[in-house]
Amino acid sequence: MENNKIVVAIGRNALGDTFPEQKENVKKAASAIADLVDAKYEVVITHSNGIQIGMIQTAMTEFSRLDSKNPVAPMSVCGAMSQGYIGFDLQNAIRTELINRGIYKPVATVITQVRVDPFDPAFHTPTKVIGRYMTKEEAELEEQKGNYVTYEETENGKGYRRIIASPKPIDIYEIDSIRTLVDAGQIVIAAGGGGIPVLDQRTGLKGASAVIEKDYTAAKLADMIDASTLLILTSKEGIRINKGTENEQFLGKITIKEAENLIEDDHFNILTSLPKVEASINFVSAGENRRSIITSLDKAKEGVLGKSGTVITK
Amino acid sequence: MENNKIVVAIGRNALGDTFPEQKENVKKAASAIADLVDAKYEVVITHSNGIQIGMIQTAMTEFSRLDSKNPVAPMSVCGAMSQGYIGFDLQNAIRTELINRGIYKPVATVITQVRVDPFDPAFHTPTKVIGRYMTKEEAELEEQKGNYVTYEETENGKGYRRIIASPKPIDIYEIDSIRTLVDAGQIVIAAGGGGIPVLDQRTGLKGASAVIEKDYTAAKLADMIDASTLLILTSKEGIRINKGTENEQFLGKITIKEAENLIEDDHFNILTSLPKVEASINFVSAGENRRSIITSLDKAKEGVLGKSGTVITK
Repeated sequence: MENNKIVVAIGRNALGDTFPEQKENVKKAASAIADLVDAKYEVVITHSNGIQIGMIQTAMTEFSRLDSKNPVAPMSVCGAMSQGYIGFDLQNAIRTELINRGIYKPVATVITQVRVDPFDPAFHTPTKVIGRYMTKEEAELEEQKGNYVTYEETENGKGYRRIIASPKPIDIYEIDSIRTLVDAGQIVIAAGGGGIPVLDQRTGLKGASAVIEKDYTAAKLADMIDASTLLILTSKEGIRINKGTENEQFLGKITIKEAENLIEDDHFNILTSLPKVEASINFVSAGENRRSIITSLDKAKEGVLGKSGTVITK
Repeated sequence: MENNKIVVAIGRNALGDTFPEQKENVKKAASAIADLVDAKYEVVITHSNGIQIGMIQTAMTEFSRLDSKNPVAPMSVCGAMSQGYIGFDLQNAIRTELINRGIYKPVATVITQVRVDPFDPAFHTPTKVIGRYMTKEEAELEEQKGNYVTYEETENGKGYRRIIASPKPIDIYEIDSIRTLVDAGQIVIAAGGGGIPVLDQRTGLKGASAVIEKDYTAAKLADMIDASTLLILTSKEGIRINKGTENEQFLGKITIKEAENLIEDDHFNILTSLPKVEASINFVSAGENRRSIITSLDKAKEGVLGKSGTVITK
């Protein structure tokens, strides 16, 4: 039997910045997912949560000021809330789109924890910026609490923001539940926001103050369910290198060896295309007959047909 | 084969009022669940979220003041967040308790939506009090927005709080996913806080501004997975009637007919024991060889052995 399992990673642009925006924007993602279901793919969806976890963390910080009994909610709790929230909107939009096409297929969101290594060097050099802008005084208070902050230019002046570690995913604790649902022909939304990062401590898990890059988790998830395809949906139709020069080039089909060479020659933006290319290499190199496709949200169907995007294979 | 499926409904007292309290308190619930797993039950867990959805709603209201782009998060979104948050703590505590006992069994939280009827009379007479105390001015603002408020005496004086509808559950949308996981021998946490209440509108679901009483949803869930036992865990070991009088009586084993007579004679508190007894009747009367047990969190094991609590059968 052909392996039609696909992991779809949905980026920030598919979700929007506010509650009403997300509810509206997920319809486009739902249409892309429904196209894949129509094409007989067994779909697992994962998504970013950078904006949403920032919103929740800000809200919870305000709440702890009002309610003196409550300390600020840990990042892990904010992550769990963001998975519930985004999953809820996504599962509804997908359900509706499928029903509109005459398809009944259960869709469920699974709260997912991902193991990170306490010795991951990322914990010493935080790179993920989250939450709202703070004043200098608020930033100093954050630093006193042991959190990292960064200073940056903004549209309306300047400000401080929290910055946290982005360690690599090494295991997915709810993988058995995800596999069981996929094998039953159901659609699963899992490991939202790269999963809730946790450290393994004896027999328990401890939430880590970190955000895992969702593309790496998507690759880990695709590997662990033995998918044939990793589909990374973003705002652009594939990756271009040497942008704005006479050597500008669109990357169509490339091998992992070619991708590795391009990384070595520093061709990718460390915050945008690099994680997508590295995640693709991780997934494709860990098995046989695998491909990773990086394309835009509205080209998902063309992507799996080999007609759009940057495709990475062995 | 014997039907060992059980739905366990965990009450407010098992979760506590703050982030650290919940993380600590769920250990006791986890121990009760592990006892049931030890006794070969296939466990589905549901829980209340009254305190937590109130916290989240307050936090999101504050957030919308800071971030003018964002309106206040709808109750349905707050409910989805509370399911993610509470499920995260519960699944971790259960996982750890099982590993400590040498048992490996996957535990997963499924974000769950529950259908309510837009013509449910509950929408005209809201009964569920949520969120923090408000001033008169804040309460008036809420009413202008179309929300209901209630005025009550508090420990520290008086205040206004939001009060919302508590309609009955009529369907569980993610039931297929829950069944699939239970049938695979996994532990499922589902329909937290009575489920996210939604209205069926053509091909879509619309979040309802309501909170479903978790005991009724637990009964619906137990019926839909065809469990043999509904176990409602609360702060007291079963139900007493005629409290403080010479006719005070502990209800041990009773039939649904006896329970119905007691309801008719107005023996139960409308906010505490009545929903538990009504939910029990709903579940037991809808199938054969079913029982509902109402006991305290630390008597769960004795409860299923018939040695504790109020037991309702046909």
